[in-house]
Amino acid sequence: MEKNLSLLTDFYELTMMQGFFLSGMSERISIFDLYCRKNPFGNGYIISAGLQQAIDYILNINFSDDDINFLASQNCFTNDFLNYLRHFKFTGDIFAVKEGDLVFPNEPLLIVRAPIIQAQFLESALLNIINHQTLIATKAARIRQAVGNDVIFEFGLRRAQAPDAAIFGTRASIIGGFDATSNVLAAKLFDIPVSGTHSHSWIMSFPSEYEAFCEYARQFPDNCILLIDTYNTLKSGILNAIKVFKEMFQKGIKPKKFGVRLDSGDFAYLTKEIRKMLDNENLFDADIVVSNDLDENLISALKPQDAKINTWGIGTKLITADTNPSLGGVYKLVAIENENGVMQPKIKISENPEKISTPCFKQIFRIYENKSNKIKADLLGLYDEKFSTDNDLTIFDSNAPWKKMTFQKNSYTVRKMLTPIILNGKKVYDFPSVLQIKNYCSSQLDTLWDEYKRIVNPEIMPVDLSNDLLHVKNSLLNEFV
Amino acid sequence: MEKNLSLLTDFYELTMMQGFFLSGMSERISIFDLYCRKNPFGNGYIISAGLQQAIDYILNINFSDDDINFLASQNCFTNDFLNYLRHFKFTGDIFAVKEGDLVFPNEPLLIVRAPIIQAQFLESALLNIINHQTLIATKAARIRQAVGNDVIFEFGLRRAQAPDAAIFGTRASIIGGFDATSNVLAAKLFDIPVSGTHSHSWIMSFPSEYEAFCEYARQFPDNCILLIDTYNTLKSGILNAIKVFKEMFQKGIKPKKFGVRLDSGDFAYLTKEIRKMLDNENLFDADIVVSNDLDENLISALKPQDAKINTWGIGTKLITADTNPSLGGVYKLVAIENENGVMQPKIKISENPEKISTPCFKQIFRIYENKSNKIKADLLGLYDEKFSTDNDLTIFDSNAPWKKMTFQKNSYTVRKMLTPIILNGKKVYDFPSVLQIKNYCSSQLDTLWDEYKRIVNPEIMPVDLSNDLLHVKNSLLNEFV
Repeated sequence: MEKNLSLLTDFYELTMMQGFFLSGMSERISIFDLYCRKNPFGNGYIISAGLQQAIDYILNINFSDDDINFLASQNCFTNDFLNYLRHFKFTGDIFAVKEGDLVFPNEPLLIVRAPIIQAQFLESALLNIINHQTLIATKAARIRQAVGNDVIFEFGLRRAQAPDAAIFGTRASIIGGFDATSNVLAAKLFDIPVSGTHSHSWIMSFPSEYEAFCEYARQFPDNCILLIDTYNTLKSGILNAIKVFKEMFQKGIKPKKFGVRLDSGDFAYLTKEIRKMLDNENLFDADIVVSNDLDENLISALKPQDAKINTWGIGTKLITADTNPSLGGVYKLVAIENENGVMQPKIKISENPEKISTPCFKQIFRIYENKSNKIKADLLGLYDEKFSTDNDLTIFDSNAPWKKMTFQKNSYTVRKMLTPIILNGKKVYDFPSVLQIKNYCSSQLDTLWDEYKRIVNPEIMPVDLSNDLLHVKNSLLNEFV
Repeated sequence: MEKNLSLLTDFYELTMMQGFFLSGMSERISIFDLYCRKNPFGNGYIISAGLQQAIDYILNINFSDDDINFLASQNCFTNDFLNYLRHFKFTGDIFAVKEGDLVFPNEPLLIVRAPIIQAQFLESALLNIINHQTLIATKAARIRQAVGNDVIFEFGLRRAQAPDAAIFGTRASIIGGFDATSNVLAAKLFDIPVSGTHSHSWIMSFPSEYEAFCEYARQFPDNCILLIDTYNTLKSGILNAIKVFKEMFQKGIKPKKFGVRLDSGDFAYLTKEIRKMLDNENLFDADIVVSNDLDENLISALKPQDAKINTWGIGTKLITADTNPSLGGVYKLVAIENENGVMQPKIKISENPEKISTPCFKQIFRIYENKSNKIKADLLGLYDEKFSTDNDLTIFDSNAPWKKMTFQKNSYTVRKMLTPIILNGKKVYDFPSVLQIKNYCSSQLDTLWDEYKRIVNPEIMPVDLSNDLLHVKNSLLNEFV
């Protein structure tokens, strides 16, 4: 899976790098936050994903001679700068929330602290990698929320936006709560369960549906999910499938997993009919699998209609994050050394208050209620701020200061969410496996009240600023008024 | 850019392959069509793209020992079959329309004719690659249609769904009519013009906006597009930019390209104000570049408001194909040899008439009116059918047979759209460069009447069936009634 992504960047990162290089500013330490301004899909939370690929990218930046020659051909870079690139290596620090962690709007998923020439360069690729996986993991979690404990398969390869979107989208789907994938390469790369049986073309290659089912059952008795909608689901497909299952049982073949799959038609009506027909033949263990443009909204509409579905195959709308195909994460400068080596907080002003950035090197402090172990609120503070749970803690919304919450001493716990991943250019963090991240993510979702997990119009988590941070932000804002 | 994509497939392709292998059917020649059932975005046409990457994929399939070991670990493949995979090589034929060609719903973009074990295997990856690039090229063509002759830049890297979507999405954007990209890697790989200057963080790294502009102008006098909305567009940004441009001119520096970029605010109001301010200072050559969640619909709304924009930077909504993030192309069996080696046409039935496939090895015959050189209709026929323009030609819509069109002899031209790309496993086609494909695509769009290019509610191109093809289709349909 090696490919050199060093040039996977917007051209302006390189012109700015040369700008910093030639103006003598390149080694000034700067801090950039990567964060989202809003929840995608109208969701109540965001699931962080993609950190491992982002870190792999950072640690493998290496401009080849070919890359340098290409840049030289643009006639706007100096030889000194190109020579600098030839030896480029990231020497700074990366702090991040873990993959599978929940974050909320305006909270950094990742912080870069590095000489500005390096930190600036990372922008485009970090956003590309983290925006994508975080988006898909969040979509997957919504679908998991809609299906409850049913089995969900990722089936999106053919509709994903190019190979990487399929490969890393599958990774993110599993993190967000999917059980398995049809994507063999992703399964191999990330050690994920893989699944699949046959398509319509299998049926159409045989003289009859019955013969196609027989041959499949003969060859794959252990995982015999038959696709029953090639010709006519109720008048042909389910009848042939039942016939084949009964013949298997008569021959003493006991499949580990068997059942039928539907890829079209009305799933509420058809699955209830099919369930009755299977149960009438004592095929109580037969699974009913469905797939066809499903998403969390259609699933939520099918559930109360008592559709008889064990397993959902979700493709297009998961893998493309349909209705919201980009996360919109941004990467903003929040502090930089001045010419005397003193860190200066920085703010991006906007006429739109939501687009104003929050300055400083920050930490996310997550406040849990001890008795429920649920999240009550998040507090953005300075990285080194300390909160003692021996004292009461009062927080408030800086945009609506009358919205206060007080936590009684010893009734709450404060957890720091951002941890060092790279320090001085060296990785200081061991990445868990994808299945470990999936379990971790599930445990984090357990710390959310149900109100925040509702897929339509959820409660919004308070994300307040500490007094110290608010003070810095307000002084910077006042400079511009 | 090498990576082994051989396992980029749905698991069921492999179980079906083993199914064909063990049932002795694997060498039967089969024909699969890759096509779309409808136009994306409510557009009037589809632009084919991605063929080169699809063919690269086919010619490079090569299961490594690692791949084989992974498959063996699934405990459902026989050693004979795994051994077969170890030596897998595509030996069949591929026919396709060229990249940059226009196609319409139900017309094959690509046809595979090969032993079924091979043809089946190609499904998932071909769909992934071609669905993606075709979708983005079509979106790009819609945006080109909306901007007229203005310059359009692809800026989507940070919001693309993982690295490949950025890289190949950029390729497809250029094919569909974009002028340049910010994506350096895509520019290098496909020899595309690349562009970009600086972001807000450049401005914020300096003590003042004016100093940031000065330093940028000093270093990059040839391409000096200054971003003016970091603090306040009209009260600060444009004033500082004008000051810097005038200082450049006073020093005798004549930039090849200069101007301002806006990334927020109301573009109709702001660009008219900015144009006046620039023109008042005789900066008539200054470009006005805008970027911020633009798409063909917003562009079409800004144009009649006389927004003063020369150059549009389009990111998120292009690169994710916003509003329609998947193409929905499918891959269907249309014919297969029977046990006696005789080709049997195949049809996929559905209760939904639009989902019924069209059988047989087909050709797209495109009918041009000679006097306008515009497309009048397409005719799907058998691959070897002949149409002589020495005779009148009458075609009709098989779903509405009273909808007839007659072309008088010698007034029309018939062009065969599908050409051989691979024959007997060997490539027989030379791929043009991306910029050549872009020009070709533009020439193809010139063969469409404006009515078909309207981005809202366009006229729909007639795609009729030849009498011979309709006869086969109807006989197969009658078998199921």
